[in-house]
Amino acid sequence: MISNKNCIIRLSRYKNALVRFKDLGFIKIFSEYLADAVGGTSAQVRKDFSLFGISGNKRGGYQIDALIAKLNSILGKNEVQKVVLVGAGQLGSALMGYGTFEKEGIKIVAAFDIDPAKIKTKSAVPVLPLDELQKFIQKNNIRIAILCVPDSAAQPTHDLLVKAGVKGVLNFAPIELKGSHDCVINNVNLAVELENLIYFVNVTAKAAA
Amino acid sequence: MISNKNCIIRLSRYKNALVRFKDLGFIKIFSEYLADAVGGTSAQVRKDFSLFGISGNKRGGYQIDALIAKLNSILGKNEVQKVVLVGAGQLGSALMGYGTFEKEGIKIVAAFDIDPAKIKTKSAVPVLPLDELQKFIQKNNIRIAILCVPDSAAQPTHDLLVKAGVKGVLNFAPIELKGSHDCVINNVNLAVELENLIYFVNVTAKAAA
Repeated sequence: MISNKNCIIRLSRYKNALVRFKDLGFIKIFSEYLADAVGGTSAQVRKDFSLFGISGNKRGGYQIDALIAKLNSILGKNEVQKVVLVGAGQLGSALMGYGTFEKEGIKIVAAFDIDPAKIKTKSAVPVLPLDELQKFIQKNNIRIAILCVPDSAAQPTHDLLVKAGVKGVLNFAPIELKGSHDCVINNVNLAVELENLIYFVNVTAKAAA
Repeated sequence: MISNKNCIIRLSRYKNALVRFKDLGFIKIFSEYLADAVGGTSAQVRKDFSLFGISGNKRGGYQIDALIAKLNSILGKNEVQKVVLVGAGQLGSALMGYGTFEKEGIKIVAAFDIDPAKIKTKSAVPVLPLDELQKFIQKNNIRIAILCVPDSAAQPTHDLLVKAGVKGVLNFAPIELKGSHDCVINNVNLAVELENLIYFVNVTAKAAA
């Protein structure tokens, strides 16, 4: 098991860049191009690939199709990954319609909400009542969930997901969830990302003043 | 200028946690509580604070109100931060209605889109034609933008923002923007976050099998 999170993030980026190069008509690619597309160095690209036994040809570069297939296999994407979403508010609804997920082989198969007004069993991504969550997860062998509920509901909902058998949660609530060894939590805190940006812009402006 | 990005991200998290503690009725807080709320150590909390000259009282802890005010001042949040958003699609629209930004003192004052069908000058966050972007940014002295346009439009739109005077971009397009020294770019790649999670869940499952 390669447990370097940053390396895996880079592999995802390489793979996404490769798909774009392929769309542009490329058949082979050099590590320099890939490094340029993701903002890294070619030495890093070659090092990351070598960790997984991928080697290129100095004069010909890497075969794009073979490389995409290999990266998809490493990233567990040779089959469609089914995920559920909890919290069908504005952000949750946007994620349900987020085309990039589908393009990357990720399918939100159902969403769940506690609010009866949000239930829509006939839509492209059905929105089901929260009390059907556990049965759905077990029946469909779902292991990944996206959590878009309000702050105060985040921890109990996370606990519910783990109890149902979920092993990975992408958490959009701006709180630190108490997890367990059994479940990986990835936090996406949009306000913190924006605050962080504002801070850097402000200090740069002050330094220049 | 303290340029450690991770430290600034932690300050944002401390501040958000403090607001929640305050909502719960706390007046003072110990570094241990704050560390627990953000998933860190109390030594780290005290070290981060000491970098900015913030000191607590061993027996009484930190005064929450004073600490929030100080962190807001460090994070450039003692005044409302005005930002613009470009790309009023599904994700962009969700961000326009994302309550957490407003709660954190961040206001999306206008959105811009190239599609005439998306223009809504009367909505809570007005959606304006893209060709009004430069004038708006200059007139309102906007320095921060959120970029939610399709991949292929991301680089030219970013260049337009920089030309108009924007100094920081939160980029949701899954591509690596070519920037300049003048503009800070923070990337939020939701598909990569999810892929990364899927990878870890899969390798954990394989290791356990």
